[in-house]
Amino acid sequence: MDEKKEEIEKEENPIPEESEDSVGEEGVEVEKISTEELSSILASHNKEELARIFEEVPDIDIAEAADKLEVEELIRMFRDVPSEMTANVFDELAQDTKENLIKAMTDKELVKLLNEQYADDLADTVGDMPANLASRVLKNASKDMREDLNELLKYKKDTAGAIMTTEYLEFRESTKVEDTIDLIRKKGRDAETVYTIFVRDNKRKFVGTVDLDDLIFAEKDQTLSDIMNVDIPNVHANTDKEEVANLFRRYDLNAIAVLNDDDCLIGIVTIDDAVDVMTQESTEDIEKMNAVTPIDDSYLETHPFTMAKKCVPWIVVLLILGTFSSMVLSQFQDKIAALSILSAFIPVLMDTGGNAGGQTIALVIRGLALKEFNPRQTAKILWQEFRSSLIIAFFISLFAVLWFTLEQMFGIVSNPQIFTGQLAIKYGVSEGTIGTIFNGLIWNWDWFSPTLRVSFVVAGTLFIAVVVSKMFAVLLPMGAAAIKKDPAIVSQPVLTTIVDVTSLLIYFGIAELLLLNPPWGGGLI
Amino acid sequence: MDEKKEEIEKEENPIPEESEDSVGEEGVEVEKISTEELSSILASHNKEELARIFEEVPDIDIAEAADKLEVEELIRMFRDVPSEMTANVFDELAQDTKENLIKAMTDKELVKLLNEQYADDLADTVGDMPANLASRVLKNASKDMREDLNELLKYKKDTAGAIMTTEYLEFRESTKVEDTIDLIRKKGRDAETVYTIFVRDNKRKFVGTVDLDDLIFAEKDQTLSDIMNVDIPNVHANTDKEEVANLFRRYDLNAIAVLNDDDCLIGIVTIDDAVDVMTQESTEDIEKMNAVTPIDDSYLETHPFTMAKKCVPWIVVLLILGTFSSMVLSQFQDKIAALSILSAFIPVLMDTGGNAGGQTIALVIRGLALKEFNPRQTAKILWQEFRSSLIIAFFISLFAVLWFTLEQMFGIVSNPQIFTGQLAIKYGVSEGTIGTIFNGLIWNWDWFSPTLRVSFVVAGTLFIAVVVSKMFAVLLPMGAAAIKKDPAIVSQPVLTTIVDVTSLLIYFGIAELLLLNPPWGGGLI
Repeated sequence: MDEKKEEIEKEENPIPEESEDSVGEEGVEVEKISTEELSSILASHNKEELARIFEEVPDIDIAEAADKLEVEELIRMFRDVPSEMTANVFDELAQDTKENLIKAMTDKELVKLLNEQYADDLADTVGDMPANLASRVLKNASKDMREDLNELLKYKKDTAGAIMTTEYLEFRESTKVEDTIDLIRKKGRDAETVYTIFVRDNKRKFVGTVDLDDLIFAEKDQTLSDIMNVDIPNVHANTDKEEVANLFRRYDLNAIAVLNDDDCLIGIVTIDDAVDVMTQESTEDIEKMNAVTPIDDSYLETHPFTMAKKCVPWIVVLLILGTFSSMVLSQFQDKIAALSILSAFIPVLMDTGGNAGGQTIALVIRGLALKEFNPRQTAKILWQEFRSSLIIAFFISLFAVLWFTLEQMFGIVSNPQIFTGQLAIKYGVSEGTIGTIFNGLIWNWDWFSPTLRVSFVVAGTLFIAVVVSKMFAVLLPMGAAAIKKDPAIVSQPVLTTIVDVTSLLIYFGIAELLLLNPPWGGGLI
Repeated sequence: MDEKKEEIEKEENPIPEESEDSVGEEGVEVEKISTEELSSILASHNKEELARIFEEVPDIDIAEAADKLEVEELIRMFRDVPSEMTANVFDELAQDTKENLIKAMTDKELVKLLNEQYADDLADTVGDMPANLASRVLKNASKDMREDLNELLKYKKDTAGAIMTTEYLEFRESTKVEDTIDLIRKKGRDAETVYTIFVRDNKRKFVGTVDLDDLIFAEKDQTLSDIMNVDIPNVHANTDKEEVANLFRRYDLNAIAVLNDDDCLIGIVTIDDAVDVMTQESTEDIEKMNAVTPIDDSYLETHPFTMAKKCVPWIVVLLILGTFSSMVLSQFQDKIAALSILSAFIPVLMDTGGNAGGQTIALVIRGLALKEFNPRQTAKILWQEFRSSLIIAFFISLFAVLWFTLEQMFGIVSNPQIFTGQLAIKYGVSEGTIGTIFNGLIWNWDWFSPTLRVSFVVAGTLFIAVVVSKMFAVLLPMGAAAIKKDPAIVSQPVLTTIVDVTSLLIYFGIAELLLLNPPWGGGLI
């Protein structure tokens, strides 16, 4: 955006309703534009105004307005505005808009357009194109560009090779500082960044980078090897792009070198591409953690049927997994029938177990994603989580005993008249008077008090369920990472299913022991 | 990192076990260092080797090794290495390491250290310090630095003011290009970035930015106003930092201007700080979505008790909310007692509802965080989600009828002998022969077939539960955002609780209608 500009007019116009997903309402005064405004300017053939727009409105905002234009308007826009101005706007357009535009363009216009593009962005676009369009683009691209594109298109998705650009500045380490600056003036315009200059030795091997500011601060007669940084990381073309993003995050890089197996520079990744990767990876993790197959387009652009395709499979899988909890419950149907108060606590049991595990699984998955720790540390994490889970389980079940007892005393869940029979016999009174005795039982902590016993059963189950659930929540993602699978796919719902079964088994096990027929007698059924 | 360097030695040493959370195993050849190596070098007083380490090992790796050093070793390190070299390493140290170091330093050493620091980083450190240490730092800071610190410390947490730096390059728009370059050479070293230069008019108002590369490509006699960008956003000191991060993401910025209410530049935020914000915000969202109060330190540095403090409150809240589902269930205890097969499907019902809602809530929260849409579009999102939820619900319940019928036929969940009584009467046969008749009933789709009826009840509930759950999953976060609350706090577990109650009510409602006593008679109990 280095267009000339005679005087400055800063307009403070509010963001028009049309640009609904406009960011930065607060404190941002950059001019926005709506599809309507844009198309009316195009209709009026007012090239000056159009040029002004392209100078003063950010490319992405123009692009978003342009996405909703008719193809005729679109093609006119690209004809009325010099191609060096439209270059970035084209890059920001939606994929299908780009394709329609290219379809409508003459070869001559296409050549002009392509020459202004960066190879890596264009490669992404071409990669998603139907074959016939893609070949048309390659046909009209300059020889160098075509080579760059073919180079970039051959790398596996999600690798450094796929997101790198081949337009960078590389100089010999023996180059003098002043010569470098001249070279940058000459060649710099085509490079994606001039802030980081890459340095190679006589054997063409990559040896380091020079920051533009160091170049400016350096003495004219110094060589690049005098001032270059050697303490900066680099990656190979097959390095996972998430890995690349983590390096940017950790080392505050502006650009990183992508090397081939001979340690020669074959491309670079710049911070803006790394930021996109970070955002995308976080989104995908969040989606996977919630049993959604990652969605390529933005939410609003996703068609209901596509959405269904992304959502149904996992739910069905989990529904099938849910069979196990059904099995367990139907095994214990007689117990439930006999002591149906047990069923009242099933949801809270399963939810609490799931929530406790969900907390841990989220922390572990995120920690793995940000490389805070790695699968080799499973034992360490497991131990740390075990200690905290004991504390957490203790406080939760302590509260649970209290809460569940109150729930029963105040009849929020059915007060267990079912027991009155046994109580009447034990205390040799009529069932009518039991009600009064009943609460008394709680206060003098008669172990027979069914209310307390139910509370202890549920709270006890909670304690075990929380600890077990948090252990699973460490083991599942760590295990996935250990076998080089994406930890996020071991999503919370999967954990929930596992936890449901275990906590139900624990529940009925303890109920059997303490409520139904304790070894020391006094069973309730 | 602009130290001189005579010849290049690239060492390919594997990452030592000590630096457990080392990133970039793949393709990264930068030298690493372990605490042991570092302390042995310090013990040997080998200043040359120490200097080499500081030149060739990334600051953050040195810092992580240094964090585990004894204070004596640490202080010696900072004495043996020139302060301009240790500046960045200090910044990367853990907070408590910094504090111990400052405690151990003489005022003279402290002054040297502080002069090398960037105001924004130092402000973060001072902000978290005990008062006595903080005041000691302020006492020893240079006058300018002290002013900067006080300035920065007064801004609210999570605002642009709190993360901005006050060390930037600002020139008049009338400044000539060549003069600018000279000025950068003179003043640039103290600025946090020289890649973006900020331009003001004679009234000191911010009018635009100039990228360093444009400066290099420009003619010597052009003025900054000729080449500056006016189509770039800026923020105010009170702008939320998440907002700032989104602007970097959207407009691929290198640095952004922070203005006061008079539109004068008071600071800048650079991309590296913005990246930290992005990472932190994603992590916090993931934590909140999973009912964890955001954790400040990294997972490994968090003490079990702290972890418990972050995890227990939400679980207790959800446990209390769980009371409602217990209430519902205990209301229907008699039904469950009469037809206990109903209880077998409770877990799968609630999980599926929760999972379906979880998918939507994740997409909505992320979309809001990335400003893909805003609360004003609630109706639009609701409509889009409603359509896809119908499709999803249809396929799920279709599958459910099939699956649950099979579950019953193959006795995975208890085969409903409970009905044999009614069946025997209806078909006038002995209960013994019912078993054989029973499956027949399914194949000739006798509506009375209890198996099919149970399946339809559960599948029907699933259909409604999925749609309702996804509607809640849109309304909850959108509502939170509308009243300027963090959508992520309306986390999946909260949704689950709501969904549990509704789906249970629906479940027993339909069961009542189709199974227990249908208006058209033929009830099962």
